[in-house]
Amino acid sequence: MLKGVNLKNPHLNKMPSDFLYHLNINVPNTADTSVIQKQFGDIVAVCAGGTSKRMRELAIYLRPILGIKDNSEPVDLCESGQRYAVYKVGPVLCVSHGVGSSTFSVVLHELLKLVKYAKCQDPVFIRIGTCGGVGVEPGTVVITKDAYNGYLKNEHEIPILGKRVVRPASFPDTLCQEILKYGAKSDDGFNTIIANTMSTDCFYEGQGRTDGAVCEYSDDEKMAFLKECQKKGICNIEMEATMFASLTQKVGVRAADVCVTLINRLNGDQVSITMHEKETFEQRPFSIVGRYIQHLLLN
Amino acid sequence: MLKGVNLKNPHLNKMPSDFLYHLNINVPNTADTSVIQKQFGDIVAVCAGGTSKRMRELAIYLRPILGIKDNSEPVDLCESGQRYAVYKVGPVLCVSHGVGSSTFSVVLHELLKLVKYAKCQDPVFIRIGTCGGVGVEPGTVVITKDAYNGYLKNEHEIPILGKRVVRPASFPDTLCQEILKYGAKSDDGFNTIIANTMSTDCFYEGQGRTDGAVCEYSDDEKMAFLKECQKKGICNIEMEATMFASLTQKVGVRAADVCVTLINRLNGDQVSITMHEKETFEQRPFSIVGRYIQHLLLN
Repeated sequence: MLKGVNLKNPHLNKMPSDFLYHLNINVPNTADTSVIQKQFGDIVAVCAGGTSKRMRELAIYLRPILGIKDNSEPVDLCESGQRYAVYKVGPVLCVSHGVGSSTFSVVLHELLKLVKYAKCQDPVFIRIGTCGGVGVEPGTVVITKDAYNGYLKNEHEIPILGKRVVRPASFPDTLCQEILKYGAKSDDGFNTIIANTMSTDCFYEGQGRTDGAVCEYSDDEKMAFLKECQKKGICNIEMEATMFASLTQKVGVRAADVCVTLINRLNGDQVSITMHEKETFEQRPFSIVGRYIQHLLLN
Repeated sequence: MLKGVNLKNPHLNKMPSDFLYHLNINVPNTADTSVIQKQFGDIVAVCAGGTSKRMRELAIYLRPILGIKDNSEPVDLCESGQRYAVYKVGPVLCVSHGVGSSTFSVVLHELLKLVKYAKCQDPVFIRIGTCGGVGVEPGTVVITKDAYNGYLKNEHEIPILGKRVVRPASFPDTLCQEILKYGAKSDDGFNTIIANTMSTDCFYEGQGRTDGAVCEYSDDEKMAFLKECQKKGICNIEMEATMFASLTQKVGVRAADVCVTLINRLNGDQVSITMHEKETFEQRPFSIVGRYIQHLLLN
């Protein structure tokens, strides 16, 4: 049964107008959002990824899958906001979120308000990213189940009004299974797995790399940490999953994190695949998510 | 006395080559970095700000100030990396860092390695940003002294190998004073002050806003929190200062955070200035930092 998006903020009901600042989308009258509904009300999936270039490519990739005949240049609907690129292809939004939780969190709050004002019915949020792998072949696609923070805890820590607030950070299992079932094929030529993900705010020290500007631990200590990750069922490391899981879980919006590994961290820290391999790898979450969205629209 | 940049990572000395992945800059031989030195060795200041558009504008703004006659379109040296824009204008780099610490941290680690490999002499790192103000007139420029995290502590917390590491997060006082002395003028028509800054990973709940997708506190609790901030000498709130202060302090590189306030949070949460006012305000840190760099080059 479809349902609208109910956010967890009673203050919003008292606001006569709203301004989604970083998207530069104005909601002049929260009591009558018909203009927003007309533009965004049909959205069934919001896809988000790091770079605007990749999100533009995703928009183009999804057109034939969604049966949309259009060869024009995709329009960035939020170009005037200067921060995030937003492409709309049929009932799917493709949004760039930058690198890491801080930047993704800002646009995620505003996208959640957007789908609420637009009265979208049960939209699904899917992050499509790249990541480091732990003990899996580079090129493997990982669908995140439980998101662990840098303290190896399956939770998201956030300071609110000066106090430490800890929230759960898991993605709905049913959605993971559906994406695997309808998105992955046995003859894909690569593995797609459901596993846990560690998410950090620092790419270097936070992920146990030894090639950053600062490093105060040994190779042995680093390897021991990566082995600890493995014991928690963590197969990949990126910079968004805990915040993404916890915020969507909090407001009851279905979400998934689908990332391709570019490196096996048990073998080193530096990304050394060629640009061509990287581009091939980056297409893999596109095909998984593309097939899943196709399934979603048929049902 | 000028000095090269010594990072705090003994592993770097053992690496025969390095790849600054997100900048897409290759260092094929760390023992002979003459190519990098030739391209970047003259850098005296690295300016960083949120958007690529603003950093392109800064590059153009700095040309006449640096006595550079050039009307051509600035070239983004790291466009192929797809993540961060890097413009070089004379001995100054202008780099976009995105929104918040997670994304800034990634490029900061790589920029610190870049100035090390390029053998730059005592370069200064300056963030030029926009922010929310606390109890100051919108349009005020704040030079950060002590950076406070969302727990209202003057420190930066980072998980490293699963453990909580806490580092100091202050900017050098001498540099704050120099930027104020040589950058600000009595007839600027706006105030430039040295004050403390709170920095959070979340723009909404983290900064006590009541207009995000989630909010579980009252207006009174929010106001009490903002008053607490004031008691700590905090005059502005943004999303980068603690990480930026702590990482540069750790490696002994001089750094400053110069931000213009777009709003007084004691009066509300929504940014409501016009686009024209915003553009005018954004020019203010440009002029402060421009004059300071002019002074730097004369001495």
